[in-house]
Amino acid sequence: MPYAIDELQEIIGNLRTELVEPIDSGGVNNTRLGRDRVERMSAEVVDSNPYSRLMALQRMNIVKDYERIRDKAVAIVGVGGVGSVTADMLTRCGIGKLILFDYDKVELANMNRLFFTPNQAGLSKVAAAGATLNFINPDVEIEMFNFNITTVDNFDRFLNAISQGGRIAGQPVDLVLSCVDNFEARMAINAACNERNLNWFESGVSENAVSGHIQFIRPGDTACFACAPPLVVAENIDEKTLKKEGVCAASLPTTMGITAGFLVQNVLKYLLNFGEVSDYLGYNALSDFFPKMTLKPNPQCDDSNCLVRQMEFQAKPKPVVVEEKADNEEPLHATNEWGIELVAENAPEINPTSTETPVVGEGLKLAYEAPEKSSETSEETVTTAPPDDASLEDLMAQMKSM
Amino acid sequence: MPYAIDELQEIIGNLRTELVEPIDSGGVNNTRLGRDRVERMSAEVVDSNPYSRLMALQRMNIVKDYERIRDKAVAIVGVGGVGSVTADMLTRCGIGKLILFDYDKVELANMNRLFFTPNQAGLSKVAAAGATLNFINPDVEIEMFNFNITTVDNFDRFLNAISQGGRIAGQPVDLVLSCVDNFEARMAINAACNERNLNWFESGVSENAVSGHIQFIRPGDTACFACAPPLVVAENIDEKTLKKEGVCAASLPTTMGITAGFLVQNVLKYLLNFGEVSDYLGYNALSDFFPKMTLKPNPQCDDSNCLVRQMEFQAKPKPVVVEEKADNEEPLHATNEWGIELVAENAPEINPTSTETPVVGEGLKLAYEAPEKSSETSEETVTTAPPDDASLEDLMAQMKSM
Repeated sequence: MPYAIDELQEIIGNLRTELVEPIDSGGVNNTRLGRDRVERMSAEVVDSNPYSRLMALQRMNIVKDYERIRDKAVAIVGVGGVGSVTADMLTRCGIGKLILFDYDKVELANMNRLFFTPNQAGLSKVAAAGATLNFINPDVEIEMFNFNITTVDNFDRFLNAISQGGRIAGQPVDLVLSCVDNFEARMAINAACNERNLNWFESGVSENAVSGHIQFIRPGDTACFACAPPLVVAENIDEKTLKKEGVCAASLPTTMGITAGFLVQNVLKYLLNFGEVSDYLGYNALSDFFPKMTLKPNPQCDDSNCLVRQMEFQAKPKPVVVEEKADNEEPLHATNEWGIELVAENAPEINPTSTETPVVGEGLKLAYEAPEKSSETSEETVTTAPPDDASLEDLMAQMKSM
Repeated sequence: MPYAIDELQEIIGNLRTELVEPIDSGGVNNTRLGRDRVERMSAEVVDSNPYSRLMALQRMNIVKDYERIRDKAVAIVGVGGVGSVTADMLTRCGIGKLILFDYDKVELANMNRLFFTPNQAGLSKVAAAGATLNFINPDVEIEMFNFNITTVDNFDRFLNAISQGGRIAGQPVDLVLSCVDNFEARMAINAACNERNLNWFESGVSENAVSGHIQFIRPGDTACFACAPPLVVAENIDEKTLKKEGVCAASLPTTMGITAGFLVQNVLKYLLNFGEVSDYLGYNALSDFFPKMTLKPNPQCDDSNCLVRQMEFQAKPKPVVVEEKADNEEPLHATNEWGIELVAENAPEINPTSTETPVVGEGLKLAYEAPEKSSETSEETVTTAPPDDASLEDLMAQMKSM
């Protein structure tokens, strides 16, 4: 028996209400309406201002000009346990632009990490993430690429995206963040960033879920991913042969969230010029231990673009450090509960090709040692500063003759 | 002009589709359907299993029996920047039960931290969080209290909830987590946990957003929050007088997320008996520095229940450590990229009432010093072990005569 028209109109009214208004006094799927765009970041202290607590960093003398973050573009490769939280944090911080790369789908097996929700199972990670991020902060420009960067064609598209996709069209992004779970993708990012001379952060979480790390790689200045590669890369092992059927890596939302937190915190320090950016920061969850170190580039690196960047870096006059930071010398707030103070910490510097056993941070060991034969030449190259009048061309010629 | 019945039915069909199916290829508000409940946690490696990556912790020899987490109940006081992420992580880990306390509303000004979304502005934090958490993992039992625990009546309800609200009705919760932003609430949690002899974690983030800490408090064993209070508590200052009109604290999703990560990681280590639980772990974002220490209880603590717990703890025969942990001695996986290894770290122990200047961890200073007059008595009380035949009653009598 068909419904009467008024009954049907009532059903329509109820369905429309359900679509727009909060249900069950909760807030999960209650409305499609997020918030309107905000023209400029304001420091005004009102509940409706999504940027008041970020702009307060200026009043607290932590950041000089927070709103500069709107001019920054960051590429994130891998939108999984670390990458999705990284994107979430940067979006909430009001970053200018994010470019996301992934080719995986959301699964229920991902629900033990933050960010994705069960209703997104089956969607591509970039589409699901893009929609959520846009909903959280519509001021952030988001570009998405649903492909594997390691294939030949896609690698070119990746190269193009990171070197042309900055906030100013045609300019490169300010940083590339690697949040992938395999070495092939890391090597692809490394090759791209060495070629285009782009700074990037490596990140990773161990398969037993209880350690993680971030590493800041500045081509020519610090070791690239090929300078001191993990054994699996150095020995040219196909990673896929290491994975067993019916076996998966463990993961925890804690370790992933902490690693993403370390990553984004150092990204903010770098982009907004405050504090000290760590070259390498590790996290061991079992003992709450945090190794730090700096890795120098390897003059026998297999990546020829890395060698070019090393020559350029050595030829470059060292920049005078301009004190752009806000004055942090004021006394801490009276409610600085445990009287935590800053202290200088000397991170050990590592030259992976030194003839002597390199001094690494407590609790760390190197996964890779340079071949014995080349160690003398290499040390000379690293420790001998080029003559003042050496041009880049001279150095390049020297390098070619090696 | 009224619609024809078939037109109305088509509208109904479209609205129902919109309610259930993904829209815009995104995933924000696309469906009310999350996932079905799961009877038992399975280690099966299939995409549809939300617990496969957690159960893998057993195969990786990190946790002996992961599913014990379903027997655990945790109370979270404060569901803001740290508390909401804490609840999110524990929910995704499949904790048995969460009890949430807060009396605040979600505002757009909270959007610079993880978890809440703009559409939740105006909802109570506990209701918004409860709905999201239930949607993420319907296996977790969630209880919500929308009140301020520091008022007289509510304090009794709080006491009752934490001492009766465990997974077995009438039993206490396994842990209380303080994620509040003021000292009055911390002192209320401290009083309740000292009275009911419940272990709890303190957490906090500085007003300039660049440092945080967690502290594990075991009544009688470690310093309680009143044993070595921050100056604002020790001097009985009304915190409200410290806050200025039109001024707000700075906050960052990074620092909040890292602090929540440290908190939940240590909660997991404690509840599931793996790794070492830190007594105090700090985080300084500007230099990536992580102070650790242990604070001994103060024998002149103002909280009389703390003194009772101290006497009980000293009288208690020290338990023999049962090696319940899974065997961690197997070689790390071949893809342990940076060769991170575990090392023992000796956290300094602090006795806040020692006559000598206490040795604190590098970069830390005490906010509070015990009055000079009582230091001799106190030191004796702490360092002299009770005679072997002293009963708890004897000790209580000694204490009363002090």
